[in-house]
Amino acid sequence: MQTYSPLFSDFYQLTMLAGYFAEGIHETPATFDLYFRKPPFQGSYAVFAGLKPALDFLENLQFGDDDIAYLRGLNEFTPEFLDFLKHFRFRGKVTAMPEGTCVFPREPLVTVEGTLAETQYVETALLNCINFQTLVATKAARVTTAAGRKSVLEFGLRRAQGPDGGLSVARAAYIGGIRSTSNIWAGKDLNIPVKGTHAHSWVMSFPDELTAFRAYARCFPKNCILLIDTYDTLQSGLPNAITVAREMRERGEKLLGIRIDSGDLAYLSKEVRKAFDAAGFPDVLITASSDLDEYVIDSVNREGGCVDIWGVGTRLATCAGEGGGALGGVYKLAWCNGLPKLKITNDPSKLTLPDRKKLWRLINPDGSFFMDVISLEREVPQPGDRVFDPTAPLLRSRIIPDNVRFESIRHTVMENGSIVRDESDLACLADRCVSQLERLPEGSLRLLNPHLYKVAITAGLNDLRTRLLRELQQ
Amino acid sequence: MQTYSPLFSDFYQLTMLAGYFAEGIHETPATFDLYFRKPPFQGSYAVFAGLKPALDFLENLQFGDDDIAYLRGLNEFTPEFLDFLKHFRFRGKVTAMPEGTCVFPREPLVTVEGTLAETQYVETALLNCINFQTLVATKAARVTTAAGRKSVLEFGLRRAQGPDGGLSVARAAYIGGIRSTSNIWAGKDLNIPVKGTHAHSWVMSFPDELTAFRAYARCFPKNCILLIDTYDTLQSGLPNAITVAREMRERGEKLLGIRIDSGDLAYLSKEVRKAFDAAGFPDVLITASSDLDEYVIDSVNREGGCVDIWGVGTRLATCAGEGGGALGGVYKLAWCNGLPKLKITNDPSKLTLPDRKKLWRLINPDGSFFMDVISLEREVPQPGDRVFDPTAPLLRSRIIPDNVRFESIRHTVMENGSIVRDESDLACLADRCVSQLERLPEGSLRLLNPHLYKVAITAGLNDLRTRLLRELQQ
Repeated sequence: MQTYSPLFSDFYQLTMLAGYFAEGIHETPATFDLYFRKPPFQGSYAVFAGLKPALDFLENLQFGDDDIAYLRGLNEFTPEFLDFLKHFRFRGKVTAMPEGTCVFPREPLVTVEGTLAETQYVETALLNCINFQTLVATKAARVTTAAGRKSVLEFGLRRAQGPDGGLSVARAAYIGGIRSTSNIWAGKDLNIPVKGTHAHSWVMSFPDELTAFRAYARCFPKNCILLIDTYDTLQSGLPNAITVAREMRERGEKLLGIRIDSGDLAYLSKEVRKAFDAAGFPDVLITASSDLDEYVIDSVNREGGCVDIWGVGTRLATCAGEGGGALGGVYKLAWCNGLPKLKITNDPSKLTLPDRKKLWRLINPDGSFFMDVISLEREVPQPGDRVFDPTAPLLRSRIIPDNVRFESIRHTVMENGSIVRDESDLACLADRCVSQLERLPEGSLRLLNPHLYKVAITAGLNDLRTRLLRELQQ
Repeated sequence: MQTYSPLFSDFYQLTMLAGYFAEGIHETPATFDLYFRKPPFQGSYAVFAGLKPALDFLENLQFGDDDIAYLRGLNEFTPEFLDFLKHFRFRGKVTAMPEGTCVFPREPLVTVEGTLAETQYVETALLNCINFQTLVATKAARVTTAAGRKSVLEFGLRRAQGPDGGLSVARAAYIGGIRSTSNIWAGKDLNIPVKGTHAHSWVMSFPDELTAFRAYARCFPKNCILLIDTYDTLQSGLPNAITVAREMRERGEKLLGIRIDSGDLAYLSKEVRKAFDAAGFPDVLITASSDLDEYVIDSVNREGGCVDIWGVGTRLATCAGEGGGALGGVYKLAWCNGLPKLKITNDPSKLTLPDRKKLWRLINPDGSFFMDVISLEREVPQPGDRVFDPTAPLLRSRIIPDNVRFESIRHTVMENGSIVRDESDLACLADRCVSQLERLPEGSLRLLNPHLYKVAITAGLNDLRTRLLRELQQ
């Protein structure tokens, strides 16, 4: 398990904490919700991930003497407050989606309850862990969806934000469906299968390409994938690889595959497939890499490209693409000291959902998802209820049909600061993601202009928000 | 100092290493260059950063028993190779640009010399550290350039790739010119000034906005910046902040500033400025945040916005923008066992520069930069020499004028695996960056379609590449 500094936070969390302490309201009970407003990549869903590292931070949060000494040196805090920090722990309750679940805009993915002090201070760490891993898991789900039944390898480490950025990428990509990585550190620490063959430098380290290929086949007879684009893919790499494939066959071995890392992947993969088929090697696998993402994979596939394994790096690790780069998850106060809380601002899209809430998934008789409903905590929505769009309550209301089953899809994962539901087996989380994606409504997985999943709020929640809005605007 | 796993690498580095070992060529001398092909963000330059963490990794690289046990469990490596790994260290030489230097496409930013084994294995860690930090430092330089003399605060932690992604952002942003952060961990570990005030949740934790502002002023009389957009910036936040400013003045205190985090920042900042000026508070500082980057800052400034402090988070931490997201730095074999090496591929832009090289900066009499020249190691370019564009050698050649001074701008930073030139003072690196940006040719800092700095190769290097290309294509 990674260890985190207790200073894994923004400075304003600490100044607010000092303020709450000075005002004597730091033990006021409070509830925060973590959610996002827009699905990433102009898609319809996100795959929830990053909970486990966030909970590890909460469970182990404790200021050491050196941290207190550093903070004292800033000359911004009173001795009483610094003394309070020495004994500060997170002792609250956390309710959350399980990792690997498909989630949608405005749904409270994580709800944190406790004192104002502890719930406020942990905002940054929660957002840091969950924003990025949810984004990568979502990108990975999109990439594996585009790849269809072909396998995908993650190798984004060299473009990730530092070593543990790379670990986060490997973990979240696995949850989203990319079940192997080039990252050895992730292999060891997270038990993810590691894969990889050779780079152009291998070829360049030998007098010529054929000599380099022969050497690689000699060293790795069971796992030989040759990179064929160091000099010229079709004129040099391909014929040399076929030569080696023949030599291996004569020795009773088998060339596993080749890799192409540049050029027109649709054209080159078809030419390579034809040549290997003609030479009697229909089983040689074709691996492709080079700035791949879901859009390139989809277009190469549509043009009849013959790629068996996709290697995805930069554009996964950086979550490139329209509406990518950042999830934009936020953490907002919903309830404090017995009162529901609402934030307005000048931007209507930033209106929050007040009060302590429950999240329900409505499930069709065939197991597919019908819609999600956010209710007040005390409410139990029923068939026949009228529900409202959270962003356009005046325009759209729907009646919940009779034939759906209601499932409360969040769990208590931490109580009194201790993890009570621990999901450490990444394979289970990845399996959950596969099953969730299968149960989305038709068209939800489309890359362009997908079907948008319905998330509604109950009449009770809608009425409360309208009332609070009127009160605040008076 | 951060500690890194020796497994901070891609699996193919390890399979290649095993291959070199099996072939008995792992001790062959080799030279790799690290460079990028295109300036990020459609700009003209990059700010080099990330060297120090990369060198720390090299200096401490050593496989532990648990690492060897993990690798043994993969059943891909021989006992002899695993035994070799036990004693494996990086004992090579590293030549590099100093951090904070302005660098340009195709220039060898880092050159690594040593055995094939050690120079190959460290590729991933070098790229990981330098790609991301150089990208962030460049983004930070663009942002501070757009902000002019106004100050900028970095608060990207909640959108960064995990905690040490956040540390990398803070470090590199500082080098690029953003000299304060919200990240307390970075404050303590990297000695960067920390700043921050309060969030919307502070306001929402009190019965009303005015009560919340008064409480904050009471707690932080010397450092009070009020966030005024929780409910309504101009109708509520602004008049309440002015009330508090008056109350503070009556107590002999001073409201330091306000912050706006949503809406039209040009319009709102002008309205807020007018209101505070009219109320007799011309010194109250206006802080703005909300998905800012160099383009938004530039456009708000052009419209006469009255922002004194810019807070930049998401778009800095994710390096968003055209040509952003990843630097695309690569690490290529240039020389091996006495021979210069060239990589071709089907993509002309991916052609490498062969052999061991030197990098020269040509400096005008007034200290400004004229152009950079890449030469073979043994060459010393002179005034009057004809030099060539590295990507279009047939089209463009230039004669070096008489009045420039030649400076070899790289240094030996590591010898026999030990750091010999250590620059740990971030403030020096940030000062260097300021001075470098001032010395770029006119138009280089333009956000759109900037002047492109000239990088040339000598006739010797050009001839060598042409010869190798012909040989390889035969």
